[in-house]
Amino acid sequence: MIIGKVIGSVVSTRKNENLVGNKFMIVEPLKSMKMAGNLVATDNIGAGIGEVVLVATGSAARVGCGVASAPIDAAIVGIVDDCSEL
Amino acid sequence: MIIGKVIGSVVSTRKNENLVGNKFMIVEPLKSMKMAGNLVATDNIGAGIGEVVLVATGSAARVGCGVASAPIDAAIVGIVDDCSEL
Amino acid sequence: MIIGKVIGSVVSTRKNENLVGNKFMIVEPLKSMKMAGNLVATDNIGAGIGEVVLVATGSAARVGCGVASAPIDAAIVGIVDDCSEL
Amino acid sequence: MIIGKVIGSVVSTRKNENLVGNKFMIVEPLKSMKMAGNLVATDNIGAGIGEVVLVATGSAARVGCGVASAPIDAAIVGIVDDCSEL
Amino acid sequence: MIIGKVIGSVVSTRKNENLVGNKFMIVEPLKSMKMAGNLVATDNIGAGIGEVVLVATGSAARVGCGVASAPIDAAIVGIVDDCSEL
Repeated sequence: MIIGKVIGSVVSTRKNENLVGNKFMIVEPLKSMKMAGNLVATDNIGAGIGEVVLVATGSAARVGCGVASAPIDAAIVGIVDDCSEL
Repeated sequence: MIIGKVIGSVVSTRKNENLVGNKFMIVEPLKSMKMAGNLVATDNIGAGIGEVVLVATGSAARVGCGVASAPIDAAIVGIVDDCSEL
Repeated sequence: MIIGKVIGSVVSTRKNENLVGNKFMIVEPLKSMKMAGNLVATDNIGAGIGEVVLVATGSAARVGCGVASAPIDAAIVGIVDDCSEL
Repeated sequence: MIIGKVIGSVVSTRKNENLVGNKFMIVEPLKSMKMAGNLVATDNIGAGIGEVVLVATGSAARVGCGVASAPIDAAIVGIVDDCSEL
Repeated sequence: MIIGKVIGSVVSTRKNENLVGNKFMIVEPLKSMKMAGNLVATDNIGAGIGEVVLVATGSAARVGCGVASAPIDAAIVGIVDDCSEL
């Protein structure tokens, strides 16, 4: 997983039917993380813009969030209260 | 997922039989995204050249788009109407 | 897998229900490794801060650690006693 | 998927038994692609050295090419006739 | 897959029980490969230090090597006799 900050959201009307009902947030990984550059993650836990979150990528984002048959490769899975990277 | 712009398409006559019927588009990720450099994604929703799209990668592109047994690792899964990155 | 050093932990109260009970550690890959920048991994074996560990990423972290339905994409799977990279 | 040029092949006599019978080609991604540096891909469609090909990576290379139980993470899945990147 | 040279091994006494009995080797990818920096791979075929090997990563390393339930994300799957990269 990586830690990042929610910096925006994405609006998409015409999309894969398995994505309907999902919220798409833009996450900027912390500078110390292995991932450089932003990604789009679904939000399963109500993260708001500005919040620091834990993001799971790959098949974990589908299978681990109860949407195994949706074309999702990144999901916000936790709100970070505290960590040594902040 | 990443956000990118459709900049072209790929023509391939001799290909894996599980790919027949798919359209292959070249997508250039937005500069702010984690992915640098273009990728080829199947198009499930009729994206045209110049459109800004949401792309899912990895197993999500197969399993999440109803083509679990096709050798596809990236798929356009939404047309982006608006996002803070544009 | 990659080898890294545990440098901190992450506290997350509001999180995906499949993550409850897991410990999240921040791992800094050794300089010689393919991965540049830190990642967050669950800890299955009681690694402490400062310890050098083996980290598995991707679906291996879920399926190989008995938590196939959790949104986990990285897990500490061994404590490194010795290796030529140290 | 990425587009690349077949620049060589790999000879391996002692290998995993699930790999027996496969051809391994070295593919150099086009400069415009997201992947920098060469990879080794199995060839399912008879690509020759010098040909420009479409390569699928990850689980798609196994599952999508009818070799789900082989340790293959990249496969040539099409010969590119034409694309805007050439 | 990528081609690399075995440059060392890893000793880990305290590890995930599904890893017991595996040998962990450190592989340095060839300079021409897409992967920069070393990785740790299990060895299924008896590769020695200094040998040039083919490494599969991701789920292919587990599923393709008969250890689908082990937390393994990279495996040596062949000894390279000859290739145009050497």
